Amino acid sequence: MEIEVKPGKYIVAVSGGVDSVVLLDLLVQCKELELVVAHFDHGIRPDSNLDQRFVKDLAKKYNLEFASEKGNLGENASEEKARNARYEFLHRAGKENHADVVITAHHQDDMLETALINLSRGTGRKGLSSLDSGNKILRPLLGFTKNQIIDYAKKKNLQWREDSTNQSDKYMRNRIRKKLAEADPQHKSDLLDLLHATKHSNREIDQILQLMLRPELPKKYLLELDHNASKELLAQWLRMHGIQFDKQLIEQLIVKAHTGRVGSVFVLKKDAKVQIDKQCLRVV
Amino acid sequence: MEIEVKPGKYIVAVSGGVDSVVLLDLLVQCKELELVVAHFDHGIRPDSNLDQRFVKDLAKKYNLEFASEKGNLGENASEEKARNARYEFLHRAGKENHADVVITAHHQDDMLETALINLSRGTGRKGLSSLDSGNKILRPLLGFTKNQIIDYAKKKNLQWREDSTNQSDKYMRNRIRKKLAEADPQHKSDLLDLLHATKHSNREIDQILQLMLRPELPKKYLLELDHNASKELLAQWLRMHGIQFDKQLIEQLIVKAHTGRVGSVFVLKKDAKVQIDKQCLRVV
Repeated sequence: MEIEVKPGKYIVAVSGGVDSVVLLDLLVQCKELELVVAHFDHGIRPDSNLDQRFVKDLAKKYNLEFASEKGNLGENASEEKARNARYEFLHRAGKENHADVVITAHHQDDMLETALINLSRGTGRKGLSSLDSGNKILRPLLGFTKNQIIDYAKKKNLQWREDSTNQSDKYMRNRIRKKLAEADPQHKSDLLDLLHATKHSNREIDQILQLMLRPELPKKYLLELDHNASKELLAQWLRMHGIQFDKQLIEQLIVKAHTGRVGSVFVLKKDAKVQIDKQCLRVV
Repeated sequence: MEIEVKPGKYIVAVSGGVDSVVLLDLLVQCKELELVVAHFDHGIRPDSNLDQRFVKDLAKKYNLEFASEKGNLGENASEEKARNARYEFLHRAGKENHADVVITAHHQDDMLETALINLSRGTGRKGLSSLDSGNKILRPLLGFTKNQIIDYAKKKNLQWREDSTNQSDKYMRNRIRKKLAEADPQHKSDLLDLLHATKHSNREIDQILQLMLRPELPKKYLLELDHNASKELLAQWLRMHGIQFDKQLIEQLIVKAHTGRVGSVFVLKKDAKVQIDKQCLRVV
């Protein structure tokens, strides 16, 4: 098992589970990488401080910088809330350490599971390639299966903590994981082929849309598109401005674009506002 | 089994196989449809005139107009060649009969097979939704399986001719058909879910791109995009102009856009030319 990562400084997300322990071991073997091990303690399980200590010792063993933070999400936190808090910490740790890019240990099985979960919830375009590598996040294990990762860990005698399964998502993800474990290899391989093709096509579309979108979004675009296409366009426009959003926010912004008084301002979040001009929307 | 088709005049593609025989029987039950039965004899098999006679009689039985044409493709014709000749005839018959839209009998299994064939050949975005209904082609059976179609035909005591399998594609399509027939239902259902999500997202993207594309394509767009994204953009631009193309033509046009002398003209086909201007490409 080998991975390739361009020389540079990176934040590595390490939970202490087998995936991230293997990721770290592989990264240490790459040339010219400066790594910061980052651990986020969600504060969901009572014993999570043991994970934190384990990862801290691991960073020490490899002689790497270590950054960690304890959230206080409580045991009923949803997967979405936990994920958002984790990534906020990771990107913040990146800024503080002058390392733009976060590396995560997501692998092939995660990608399949996530795509199927998103599908069952009625996903849009991005939900099908939600674990793709991007500008700010690298996922060098996406080409490997969970079994390959475990084999590597055993062969190299690595120690790890058992992965804590996320609470709210437990039932759905576990059910899908079980289904995929029982599926014949052809089934997984067909799904993967289809997902890869979708990802490639998404990357091309992203490029084209980023090229054609202007900082100001003409209102007439939204008037001429049907509802779903409007949502897709608005989402892409917000991504261009580096603004995070969810489904609900997009729906609200569409209503506002159609009905908002000229000059009025829609507050997306504390540091992102959209102004409704006569002809266009503008981030202010 | 029931289908819904908006009132209007349509060309129905009928090969004489069970799929199109069932399609026709279902269409005849819809209200306010004016139907023209169209049969294309590819001239690939020696006994294809028997199919033609069968479909002619079927049209007579339903008291419908009938249009047919005999191609002369020969027994080694590729699936692509046969398909192009068939659709050219169908659209021509549409024009002659003042019926813009063609209805075909493609069903769920066809859609899955075609997507998997395209995938194995390295498809782009459109290959994943290649049998989607569009402006000019309706496929009201896409929601039904082959088994449902056969059950319907038997229940209604319909007569049909055995489908002739296409020559060049025989091995690949047969292999994929066999694989799908043996797959567990979950496998097919996962693939279908993924394909449907991809189709929906493709429709939104099509709308957005059609809205943002101008009749003239700025050259700088092609210079700023990577190769695959350039191909996607050019394809969408040619579609906007109603110009048919294949992969090879797109590649040639990209080279021409980068290297062609200002004012030079690239002949796509006899009635479609692209002129290379200083700043843009223009269909002339």
